[in-house]
Amino acid sequence: MEYQPIRFGEKLGLIDDHWVPKVIAEMNDYQFKIVKIEGDFVWHDHEDTDETFIVLDGELRIDFRDGAVNIGKGEMFVVPKGVEHKPFAESEVHMLLIEPRGVVNTGEVGGDLTANNDVWI
Amino acid sequence: MEYQPIRFGEKLGLIDDHWVPKVIAEMNDYQFKIVKIEGDFVWHDHEDTDETFIVLDGELRIDFRDGAVNIGKGEMFVVPKGVEHKPFAESEVHMLLIEPRGVVNTGEVGGDLTANNDVWI
Repeated sequence: MEYQPIRFGEKLGLIDDHWVPKVIAEMNDYQFKIVKIEGDFVWHDHEDTDETFIVLDGELRIDFRDGAVNIGKGEMFVVPKGVEHKPFAESEVHMLLIEPRGVVNTGEVGGDLTANNDVWI
Repeated sequence: MEYQPIRFGEKLGLIDDHWVPKVIAEMNDYQFKIVKIEGDFVWHDHEDTDETFIVLDGELRIDFRDGAVNIGKGEMFVVPKGVEHKPFAESEVHMLLIEPRGVVNTGEVGGDLTANNDVWI
């Protein structure tokens, strides 16, 4: 039997909205989510979990209350649990998020950018 | 404060051996490990956990008892827990492994290719 890999490019081709992570794989109780973003997100944190960002294309900036990190293609960053952060993309960024199943993208903050957190593509 | 991302290319430049995963980041109790591989690994499984492979460069094949998967650059695959597998790279492959802290690369099988599983670079 020939098993199929998960192709980031193929999955990205199915996405045309911003800030709506789509699940592409699970490892134990963690999920891999592909997302396209552009512009400003909201300040939020995740009280119970770290969150991993891997940039597939573009340049992501994550602002913290005490600074920022710039993450380019082929780079990653783990935002520690409980740390307030605000993603920002001046131009469109394609990225992979890794976090436990059930994490809401806006944390406890909510608002218009809150996405259904278990949509697969 | 300017935080620094983790750059896969920079970490790969520090590795000159094969089949020895090096930890580059942690998310909760999971680790991200960078590894260069070439040739055949040993048949093994991980009884208690899934294991994620993300190919950064080259073409990885993972053999299973009932088939195989080919994973190229920009592609990933999650090997389910308890499933016997044998990674193979005809030419050098650079990849990112994601798995819980403490996982041994050869599972329960052991042997010469067993690596210290908590070396950071």
